[in-house]
Amino acid sequence: MSRPPGRKQDNHKIDWHLPTVSSSASAHHMSRELFVLTYGALVAQLCKDYEKDEDVNSCLDKMGYGIGIRLIEDFLARSAVKKCRSYSETADVIAQVAFKMYLGVTPSVSCSSAAGNEFSLILDKNPLVDFVEELPAGRASLCYCNLLCGVIRGALEMIHLAAEVTFLQDKLKGDAVTEIGIVFLKKAEDKKQKRNK
Amino acid sequence: MSRPPGRKQDNHKIDWHLPTVSSSASAHHMSRELFVLTYGALVAQLCKDYEKDEDVNSCLDKMGYGIGIRLIEDFLARSAVKKCRSYSETADVIAQVAFKMYLGVTPSVSCSSAAGNEFSLILDKNPLVDFVEELPAGRASLCYCNLLCGVIRGALEMIHLAAEVTFLQDKLKGDAVTEIGIVFLKKAEDKKQKRNK
Repeated sequence: MSRPPGRKQDNHKIDWHLPTVSSSASAHHMSRELFVLTYGALVAQLCKDYEKDEDVNSCLDKMGYGIGIRLIEDFLARSAVKKCRSYSETADVIAQVAFKMYLGVTPSVSCSSAAGNEFSLILDKNPLVDFVEELPAGRASLCYCNLLCGVIRGALEMIHLAAEVTFLQDKLKGDAVTEIGIVFLKKAEDKKQKRNK
Repeated sequence: MSRPPGRKQDNHKIDWHLPTVSSSASAHHMSRELFVLTYGALVAQLCKDYEKDEDVNSCLDKMGYGIGIRLIEDFLARSAVKKCRSYSETADVIAQVAFKMYLGVTPSVSCSSAAGNEFSLILDKNPLVDFVEELPAGRASLCYCNLLCGVIRGALEMIHLAAEVTFLQDKLKGDAVTEIGIVFLKKAEDKKQKRNK
């Protein structure tokens, strides 16, 4: 049913404003808070479902993996990122483009191995825990944001990069920062190519 | 460990761009796709947990309610919306400010009762189902997006507006549009005030 035609006249001018987002960007953008709270509901549900923290962590990682293998297509299409030439470039793109695009934050990146295949993404502020003051009681081993590890692992796998992705530090567990570790697993092929050079 | 200082020189210029979002807006903004996929994982988990569609719907509604009662504070702080003077103004704010802010879309609003307390939010495009082609097999009664109803109900309750919020139509069920019905439950006080005028 359509709006009664006379109604507009009864309305006072509504005093509101919208966040400053260009219309082209807003087609894909939303405010983070609904996501953060929904993610909290998901973790809470898994904590109901599984007694052991390890099972919740593993479930979040698996869910994230399923998300990552679908999200990569969206990411490549919208970021216009070209093929990365090194692990370090890949780590930079994850931090500076992917995190920025999907979570609105940019972790700093550091390389943590001489071999150049281990990186840390360091988050001073983790938006996913905006509404979380501490881990739920009796859940000291919960990796609250483990979904993110799965997402990164899944997305990397789709561009033929095998990686182990885990939380190394977590502010929710009392650490000074939140740190996600990415270890790119070198392929047999890589080694062969290097020998041939 | 910090990044090896010589590394930058090895890097070619990275060809990437970020979505056009102002830095002030981006502090709260993220790309919708991660949320949409995470929401899908939540619904899938609940479908594992509960056999009956009604139980999944009810659980989503309850989760949404819990989110709504927390989200309202964020909404009021960031939207700068003043007190609404009528149910119709409230419905407009939900559609034009809240949906825009949290989901990046603006449903159209229509009043569907002569009494002026029933409204429909009509979504031509529902971003929450972006990656969903159809309801899961054997889940014909699932209200996939029922979380939204709970969010609206919870948020309204916190500003002392009791309402029933339900899906009236759903594209996922073959309807032409997705329609959320909001029925504001008139308070005894309202009636008293009217009599006194």
